[in-house]
Amino acid sequence: MKKLINFSISFIIFFILLSSCKQELVKENKGERAPLENIQKDPLPSWNETSTKKEIIAYVDVVCDKNHPYFIPVKDRISVFDNDGNLWSEQPAYFQLFFAMDRVKEMAPDHPEWKNKQPFKAVLENDMESLAEQGEEGLIKLVMATHSGNTIKEFDTYVKDWIASAKHPTKNVTYDQLVYQPMLELLQFLRANDFKTYVVSGGGVDFMRAFVTDIYGIPEEQIIGSRIKTEFDYNDGNPRIVRLAALDFIDDKEGKPLNIQKIIGKKPVFSSGNSDGDLQMMQWTASNKYNSFMLYVHHTDSIREWAYDRDSHIGKLDKGLDQAIKDGWTVIDMKKDWKVIYPFEISDSHQDQD
Amino acid sequence: MKKLINFSISFIIFFILLSSCKQELVKENKGERAPLENIQKDPLPSWNETSTKKEIIAYVDVVCDKNHPYFIPVKDRISVFDNDGNLWSEQPAYFQLFFAMDRVKEMAPDHPEWKNKQPFKAVLENDMESLAEQGEEGLIKLVMATHSGNTIKEFDTYVKDWIASAKHPTKNVTYDQLVYQPMLELLQFLRANDFKTYVVSGGGVDFMRAFVTDIYGIPEEQIIGSRIKTEFDYNDGNPRIVRLAALDFIDDKEGKPLNIQKIIGKKPVFSSGNSDGDLQMMQWTASNKYNSFMLYVHHTDSIREWAYDRDSHIGKLDKGLDQAIKDGWTVIDMKKDWKVIYPFEISDSHQDQD
Repeated sequence: MKKLINFSISFIIFFILLSSCKQELVKENKGERAPLENIQKDPLPSWNETSTKKEIIAYVDVVCDKNHPYFIPVKDRISVFDNDGNLWSEQPAYFQLFFAMDRVKEMAPDHPEWKNKQPFKAVLENDMESLAEQGEEGLIKLVMATHSGNTIKEFDTYVKDWIASAKHPTKNVTYDQLVYQPMLELLQFLRANDFKTYVVSGGGVDFMRAFVTDIYGIPEEQIIGSRIKTEFDYNDGNPRIVRLAALDFIDDKEGKPLNIQKIIGKKPVFSSGNSDGDLQMMQWTASNKYNSFMLYVHHTDSIREWAYDRDSHIGKLDKGLDQAIKDGWTVIDMKKDWKVIYPFEISDSHQDQD
Repeated sequence: MKKLINFSISFIIFFILLSSCKQELVKENKGERAPLENIQKDPLPSWNETSTKKEIIAYVDVVCDKNHPYFIPVKDRISVFDNDGNLWSEQPAYFQLFFAMDRVKEMAPDHPEWKNKQPFKAVLENDMESLAEQGEEGLIKLVMATHSGNTIKEFDTYVKDWIASAKHPTKNVTYDQLVYQPMLELLQFLRANDFKTYVVSGGGVDFMRAFVTDIYGIPEEQIIGSRIKTEFDYNDGNPRIVRLAALDFIDDKEGKPLNIQKIIGKKPVFSSGNSDGDLQMMQWTASNKYNSFMLYVHHTDSIREWAYDRDSHIGKLDKGLDQAIKDGWTVIDMKKDWKVIYPFEISDSHQDQD
């Protein structure tokens, strides 16, 4: 949510520029293949044989070895993953914002007043310049109007319907296809070694739970995120939880370790993120009495994904990068370390082979 | 917390009365035995062969049977248990209040001003009448002074030290011995059938996590409770989470289903409680699309435990009992349904056999 709120004018200009030069970038990297037959032997087949992959595997081997001094009991193998820009893409805007904009268009028939009311007018007219002019206040209005005033069940249905049909503005695939194949393998590798995998994201928890459970193999109770306030309504024997137009908790920056303590109650041993919003979670993980692993995704691939870090208005990675370098945390160089970015690149390459 | 706040004058009088006639009630029921050799065959050996036990076993059998129309997939087998009065005793006061009072005495040397300042003066002088006169405001002061101003690590140590040594005022055993043996068996029976067992309590989450994990076999991340606010302090590279003197969330009444949704994100199929504070959690569970099970503990045993319900100032069971009767929820009659109350009754009876 906070990330959404930080959404700035220059970012919107960036968005407009990108939208105006739509490309099918995803088709350009078919050459990078991760043949399925290797998955059996290699737990991270979509990762190149660089030091990053070796460090991850060496860490897991060591902490799961009962005879090693760095052994970690199963109950303490807590791993936490940021979502936007870490498990799936986040450009040219957080996908949850596209959902909010699409919801405005869907809800518009019941809100004739939106035709002449900002920020809704701008969304309905696809006028990104005017939307940018509404600033943070306009964005909060947008999120509150589209994310509240419904029950958790209704909201869940809206998100499920959206994810099944809406397409990313430049990649032109459904958003759920824009998850990172190498990270899916990492999640699976950790679980195979009895790590509990959690999502700890600034994104809305009910938004994520509506569909990422299936994609990441992570149950609802291991998805942590930002929340709006809710209220319980007995509703004459048909109880429901209603979503209110007020923020309850921002799961970003200091909020991440605080929420981890509130909800998990244990310090993670493995933490993965891509921005300064994940730094406190990394610091908290780094202070574990067990040998812990801090992993930053560095967006370095302007061709297959996007390249951005210190000056980005989304997923800014500046202080985090400094501390990662200073403290020797592992930094994924997306361009060099990953054979493929998205799962469909594997299917594409296999279809080519047929 | 809210329960603590509701702590009333008449309750304190009750407390004084009880304290003045200390008895070793726990020794009176050795005759009720649950021989260990039966545990293998019978999942609930400390339960008498009444309809309550039969209903529980029949439910679990049915919902775990793949060929039955009421089958529930493993991922949705979420069970939630209130703590005070449901998994362990709560009389003559919530055990967390005894902890707060003992902490005041322990902290007193660093707070000479407490000698003349209420409610601390009353606690230090064991003057329960004056403590009662401080009312809710005094109790909040007591809880805030003893539960905040420390790190989660320090607080964890205080609770662990306390539970290892402090004794219940009338039962004269450490508080961790006052858990209900039949409920420990029920938790184990559910887990053996792939239910995830959660504690969802009005008690403080960090208080519970400090010791109930071992006793109930429930990991920290499955313990949900009331919380005070916290803040993250980077502390020059030794990050810590500091507990602040302000309430964050009251996990009672409507708070229970709200917190279940926030943290678990799924509706439970099995809910167990003992008071009106659990009613909304029961109603929420009863509205599950799956066949669900609502279980109330009714405190009917004035000899082995305590007998109280509609008029009690702790664990009041009034509206809940009405709805349980109306809707056919299962109500445990502690006196009739349980062979033993506490685990040490089994050990005692076995020692007798030696």
